[in-house]
Amino acid sequence: MAAPVVAVVGGGQLARMMAPAATALGLHLRVLVEDAVSSAAQVVVDAPVGEPGDPVALERLVSGAAVLTFEHEHVPNTLLTELGDRGIPVHPGPDALVHAQDKIVMRTRLTALGVPCPRWAAVESADGLRQFLDQATGERAAVVKTARGGYDGKGVRVVRDPAEVHDWFSAAATGTGAPLLAEELVPFTRELAVLVARRPSGEVRTWPVVESVQRDGVCAEVIAPAPHLDPATAAQAEQIGRTVAEGLGVTGVLAVEMFELPDGTLLVNELAMRPHNSGHWTIDGAVTSQFEQHLRAVLDLPLGETAAREPWSVMINVLGSQHAVLTDALPLLGPGVKVHLYGKAVRPGRKLGHVTVTGDDLESVRARARAAAATVMGVDA
Amino acid sequence: MAAPVVAVVGGGQLARMMAPAATALGLHLRVLVEDAVSSAAQVVVDAPVGEPGDPVALERLVSGAAVLTFEHEHVPNTLLTELGDRGIPVHPGPDALVHAQDKIVMRTRLTALGVPCPRWAAVESADGLRQFLDQATGERAAVVKTARGGYDGKGVRVVRDPAEVHDWFSAAATGTGAPLLAEELVPFTRELAVLVARRPSGEVRTWPVVESVQRDGVCAEVIAPAPHLDPATAAQAEQIGRTVAEGLGVTGVLAVEMFELPDGTLLVNELAMRPHNSGHWTIDGAVTSQFEQHLRAVLDLPLGETAAREPWSVMINVLGSQHAVLTDALPLLGPGVKVHLYGKAVRPGRKLGHVTVTGDDLESVRARARAAAATVMGVDA
Repeated sequence: MAAPVVAVVGGGQLARMMAPAATALGLHLRVLVEDAVSSAAQVVVDAPVGEPGDPVALERLVSGAAVLTFEHEHVPNTLLTELGDRGIPVHPGPDALVHAQDKIVMRTRLTALGVPCPRWAAVESADGLRQFLDQATGERAAVVKTARGGYDGKGVRVVRDPAEVHDWFSAAATGTGAPLLAEELVPFTRELAVLVARRPSGEVRTWPVVESVQRDGVCAEVIAPAPHLDPATAAQAEQIGRTVAEGLGVTGVLAVEMFELPDGTLLVNELAMRPHNSGHWTIDGAVTSQFEQHLRAVLDLPLGETAAREPWSVMINVLGSQHAVLTDALPLLGPGVKVHLYGKAVRPGRKLGHVTVTGDDLESVRARARAAAATVMGVDA
Repeated sequence: MAAPVVAVVGGGQLARMMAPAATALGLHLRVLVEDAVSSAAQVVVDAPVGEPGDPVALERLVSGAAVLTFEHEHVPNTLLTELGDRGIPVHPGPDALVHAQDKIVMRTRLTALGVPCPRWAAVESADGLRQFLDQATGERAAVVKTARGGYDGKGVRVVRDPAEVHDWFSAAATGTGAPLLAEELVPFTRELAVLVARRPSGEVRTWPVVESVQRDGVCAEVIAPAPHLDPATAAQAEQIGRTVAEGLGVTGVLAVEMFELPDGTLLVNELAMRPHNSGHWTIDGAVTSQFEQHLRAVLDLPLGETAAREPWSVMINVLGSQHAVLTDALPLLGPGVKVHLYGKAVRPGRKLGHVTVTGDDLESVRARARAAAATVMGVDA
């Protein structure tokens, strides 16, 4: 058959959701999973077990592969550079990926590109952070982040006094923790995200800009497109997405999370160089899903159409559940709900799945999506 | 995790296309495949190899399964009855399935239910067939079918003289072939199909009635919904679908293929009790695909919404290809084409995949779908 092999690092739900897209396109998906019962391992035939930082495991993963890609950013860049030097296509490449791995590198580069960011500084000491706080124009507070290793709200603290991140400074000083970044506390009205795909030969496509609602630092709800979004702001968000994708040389799917301020100003918050929670709605709501698009992009295939299929899509995460087995909720869901379960063991607050509802009327779509997510979580809507 | 296990007999593209639906619903799919490289085996982790008629293989297949179902009708009913007697849910059950296995049983039952069929007779000899031909009202010709084992135009001949099926009569007489059925040659204007899903507890849903275009006895193109279909005819087609599903006690997805006559009369041609080629458009064109719906139905879960997502969907089969590897065609396809490749070795005329295009304007949608299918086949559009 000799279908192209797409090698993916990571066995979570993002790799899992690449599987249906690979099936349709007739591609051979091979996923390096943390363990044999991980979310992706349940649905991918070729799923070797190994650590993303293990050179032997990576070697096996890329054997005969047309491309190496990722569902997370936790692969040592030295290994990727070495693979790339040997002619194995790595997308996104290590030179791009570093911007999703290190927030100081990211802020430095975005600032150089003229991409609007919150006021920020790398802070190496309590004094440095105090100086940063002294310059606050609004509330005397800052968002302090570890430059590396954070996700879903971990590695992020809102700080009013440097003592609140004393432990992080100590860890950074002794080399057991990452350097720290301070960012102004932005008085945003809401969070937006733009999803972009770029292929190595340069083609770029963006999906409609979405509104993303976070709870406790975790994406809870996504509305596509972002309601009442000023067309000029939407165009600016898309332009920022393109600038970041092109400026950083991103290949594959890129998510750019942004703050919208009361006057419509946009400031970039975070980047992810892979399919992203803010794009899960595309499976049921867009002509081409972010998972299919990511496979297309990393293989340098023509990108698929990104138009929405219906006026509104609302995606809601299933975070924890009262059901012991999530499929127990299936008999309780209405006929228009698209449910995606990740095959994970239930734990409080864990991302176990998501639901998407699409339709003409936003209020009704959102109400049905919220009710469905509550049903899967086993809680009152 | 303990997700419900859905056991499926058959490793072809129909079982393959159940995999993405099972992934989304968090179900454990287990497929009995003919060999380890079959279409479904490439994308289903739990894919034991065995013959559908082997009791040991079936026993392993159903171990711990919530339900046993099928992608084809070639399982001995005695085995299914035995499994059902032991309390293993079998959907569709053997009492329904026999109507998809034996065309004489099917015609007898449909006639008893008052479902409109072409004039037909079981014919046991050349004399019997001659009598049938003598009664022809139009052209002196009949469609002769083997009652069992036919598919995709095999086991079907248009006959003007009994000598043309002499070999089949001989085989039937010596017990090496199936009994024969003669049907009038219907002067139809086109073929329609209605796809129905029914769950054991009784809920029934139908998708919009489609037009299906056959070439050389093989489904080549499906247009959803059937263009210019009289609403009364559409309602009658849906009613026929429901009557067949309920009258025969079908569970899961049922496809009813029909002839439409110049005056709008409908006559049932064939039945299939499983996802069917005439329903492939539902993957990209309907809220719920026939594959997800089949899984829902056989598990007795609430059925999903069957509305079309866009005004028109056109599905075209990829039958053979000039490409040695079908994925070689991916770089040549336009952005709005949804392609589904089955991972099969290329052989002339073989069903290797399909493409679907959706949109507002039928002529443009059909032209794009035809061009895309030609591209995958490596031929001029």
